[in-house]
Amino acid sequence: MKTKKASESYTFKTEMVLPNDTNTLGNLMGGKLMHWIDIIAAIAAQKASNRTVVTASVDSISFNSPILLGEIVELEAQVTRSFNTSMEIRVSVKATNLRTGESRPCNIAYLTFVAVDQNGNPIPVTNIIPENEQEETWFEEALQRREMRLFLAGRIEIDESQELKKILRKS
Amino acid sequence: MKTKKASESYTFKTEMVLPNDTNTLGNLMGGKLMHWIDIIAAIAAQKASNRTVVTASVDSISFNSPILLGEIVELEAQVTRSFNTSMEIRVSVKATNLRTGESRPCNIAYLTFVAVDQNGNPIPVTNIIPENEQEETWFEEALQRREMRLFLAGRIEIDESQELKKILRKS
Amino acid sequence: MKTKKASESYTFKTEMVLPNDTNTLGNLMGGKLMHWIDIIAAIAAQKASNRTVVTASVDSISFNSPILLGEIVELEAQVTRSFNTSMEIRVSVKATNLRTGESRPCNIAYLTFVAVDQNGNPIPVTNIIPENEQEETWFEEALQRREMRLFLAGRIEIDESQELKKILRKS
Amino acid sequence: MKTKKASESYTFKTEMVLPNDTNTLGNLMGGKLMHWIDIIAAIAAQKASNRTVVTASVDSISFNSPILLGEIVELEAQVTRSFNTSMEIRVSVKATNLRTGESRPCNIAYLTFVAVDQNGNPIPVTNIIPENEQEETWFEEALQRREMRLFLAGRIEIDESQELKKILRKS
Amino acid sequence: MKTKKASESYTFKTEMVLPNDTNTLGNLMGGKLMHWIDIIAAIAAQKASNRTVVTASVDSISFNSPILLGEIVELEAQVTRSFNTSMEIRVSVKATNLRTGESRPCNIAYLTFVAVDQNGNPIPVTNIIPENEQEETWFEEALQRREMRLFLAGRIEIDESQELKKILRKS
Amino acid sequence: MKTKKASESYTFKTEMVLPNDTNTLGNLMGGKLMHWIDIIAAIAAQKASNRTVVTASVDSISFNSPILLGEIVELEAQVTRSFNTSMEIRVSVKATNLRTGESRPCNIAYLTFVAVDQNGNPIPVTNIIPENEQEETWFEEALQRREMRLFLAGRIEIDESQELKKILRKS
Repeated sequence: MKTKKASESYTFKTEMVLPNDTNTLGNLMGGKLMHWIDIIAAIAAQKASNRTVVTASVDSISFNSPILLGEIVELEAQVTRSFNTSMEIRVSVKATNLRTGESRPCNIAYLTFVAVDQNGNPIPVTNIIPENEQEETWFEEALQRREMRLFLAGRIEIDESQELKKILRKS
Repeated sequence: MKTKKASESYTFKTEMVLPNDTNTLGNLMGGKLMHWIDIIAAIAAQKASNRTVVTASVDSISFNSPILLGEIVELEAQVTRSFNTSMEIRVSVKATNLRTGESRPCNIAYLTFVAVDQNGNPIPVTNIIPENEQEETWFEEALQRREMRLFLAGRIEIDESQELKKILRKS
Repeated sequence: MKTKKASESYTFKTEMVLPNDTNTLGNLMGGKLMHWIDIIAAIAAQKASNRTVVTASVDSISFNSPILLGEIVELEAQVTRSFNTSMEIRVSVKATNLRTGESRPCNIAYLTFVAVDQNGNPIPVTNIIPENEQEETWFEEALQRREMRLFLAGRIEIDESQELKKILRKS
Repeated sequence: MKTKKASESYTFKTEMVLPNDTNTLGNLMGGKLMHWIDIIAAIAAQKASNRTVVTASVDSISFNSPILLGEIVELEAQVTRSFNTSMEIRVSVKATNLRTGESRPCNIAYLTFVAVDQNGNPIPVTNIIPENEQEETWFEEALQRREMRLFLAGRIEIDESQELKKILRKS
Repeated sequence: MKTKKASESYTFKTEMVLPNDTNTLGNLMGGKLMHWIDIIAAIAAQKASNRTVVTASVDSISFNSPILLGEIVELEAQVTRSFNTSMEIRVSVKATNLRTGESRPCNIAYLTFVAVDQNGNPIPVTNIIPENEQEETWFEEALQRREMRLFLAGRIEIDESQELKKILRKS
Repeated sequence: MKTKKASESYTFKTEMVLPNDTNTLGNLMGGKLMHWIDIIAAIAAQKASNRTVVTASVDSISFNSPILLGEIVELEAQVTRSFNTSMEIRVSVKATNLRTGESRPCNIAYLTFVAVDQNGNPIPVTNIIPENEQEETWFEEALQRREMRLFLAGRIEIDESQELKKILRKS
């Protein structure tokens, strides 16, 4: 079975906030940022699988820090774990004011992409191997997030999920 | 205190999938759909609050059904519940093939928007009143989703959440 | 012969005026609004005919009320009458200031679309049936507008048009 | 009173039809063409008046000849006549297939623009002088078209219009 | 062998600077202007060759005069000379403030386009004939610019270039 | 005097070629790539200077390798040298086919940006320090390229340029 290192899917993207990306306050619109997040995650998933991929889900995203017109936005994406025909991608977003040079973290997003053939049918993906401690943490937690997604989608009960039981016991 | 009916925030939007909205399979890109979802939710939140609003969070979204070039996408948004300075908006997405006239449900998304003043500081919002059974269900569940968001963001423990305890007991 | 109710073609679209839609006064450009009008009319015509459609003509449009950056624009379209291979669509445009909640009517446009096959050749369309008084008025007047179009295009003389003679007698 | 030659407002624009300008048949969408027509007419009106201008109306436009992906579109605009605070602009559209080098006329559009001050209030415009036979014909007919617009908008009766009576007598 | 007059490739384009074309100073971004320059040059090259063309190179461009939001930009392009499978196109850019009516020259750009068949392979182009003194100067200098390009790309030595030797002797 | 390491201006950007970025062959248009090159260079220049910057010039660019719809484009920018009020930025472009995972270098571009104050007047920039051998080569050669630019713009004679004389002696 084909394998790849998680870091081979690493993708980076810098954008500048232009007038049409902003709302009437002069801030980057949430929907535009989600668009960028989706595109960079798709590229990372294609790097990992060498396949056409389609967005299967986006986990919840918080927008805590408004990003202003003229600021730059740096997006970083990497596949955390592959499942049968799908991959989880972690995207982190940082904004920088180039007048002061100060950066601030803005969002972390987790997306799931499915690899598909020419007819759009799911096909198995390359096995993704974490290599350092950080990647292993992401890899481990990917399973938790996956079962949380299945639970939120009503596809499994908490009883069926070892991972969710672990979270609940901790809290 | 000012109040409004939930239905006063109802917003509807029809889009046609054009070439630049699609990926190399000829399907609507997830990120473009998220952009449309964010815009319609922002409009619904502004109708409810008569204020400038900013996206605070987007709950997880699944993309089960690919939407094709040339199909139309109908988005429907309504505020489900207002909290102190924020509102939850429910967006449902339907795709239609105009050759056959057949429609299919595609996504349900929940977003949270915060109303802000001219300096971007949060300000109290109008109280939103559900009026029928459907709106009351959305209103009740909004609290559960809110506590789930706070739990996922690490801001509360499960013990502090009556709503999450209810879900867990059920499952 | 296949028939459909006029109301089955009803289409609704909400847009927010973003920076790139505006001229240097901060008002929605007429050409952008015409673009939205054309798209919603095309969707209504496709709903009525379940065919690919192309714009055949747009009747004169007045722009009386400037629409400002940040305002929302609501467009409503419905087929008024079908002819042999063409349909007339009525689009009405309303603008709303979401700070005050006040709406104002902006434009009424009439467009004609032709249904075409894969080679772009005109093909017969579904027969559209008005059902209430309002739709019947639109249906009746569609014939007048059609003959006015043919007269303005130099294809018929006033003598050949019962409808134009009626208008002239009235005025 | 300030005057200008009509030809000083002459404006020309070449566009290439790109993927996102087309419908699912691969033809230029009517609404996109209207957008280009509005922009070139606005430029011609600004050349004539040296003022900010806003679209007041667009006369009926026919779309007889589909324009294909990859073809070029040439738009030509010129002010035909100025009234008190408004100007009529004539736009003609030609499409060219660059493989064969063959051009074909596509549309003639008449638009009215109003010159406005910084608060958006109408202000008097420069007097536009026709100089050759072609421009004089456009100038004469501009009055007819104007009264037709007022009649179609229900602002005048045919009895009040010398120009409309002339047209009717001819037909 | 097929020939064409240089003037048959003449292409003209007027654009208005809209909000999304500008940087945070409200000036037209250099990259957007380069995009317009590339498109108009491509159209001129297609007019000359009646072929699909691809950009092969762009000579250095200076941006001396900022162009502001709301100003209009006039681009003029013409093929100066054809080589075997390529053509050189000269683009000149002028900006106009429509409030004052004043124009100023902004840039001169030279681009090279290659004509290609359906597989993207270069194919011979029509021979372009200069007709007046201005066109003959452009035609002569095109050879100098071509050898300068080859020299800058490291493909020829100065010794191999009659044209570069001439420039050096002059300076 | 303020200094910065050259590497502090390093900027990276990944883009995916979408339908509207392509010409009728399905290849990325040269003008779109130039737009991306300009934006990433502007970001690098802002990182180096913490100032608003405007494009002053772009050196000649060759487009040897067509980039296809669906491929990804990676752009890398870094300031090579600062002069009084200007900076030279080097941008390298690489394309990758994500089905095969193969990458190929596409272009190297050199741009000059000027730092400006709020009135658009040039102001002194931070001194940029090369730190490794590669950066020192870029730094040295930046002077050559600068004198070549001045020579090509007719602002200096070859006799006045030590750097150009060096190039000529070598060839």
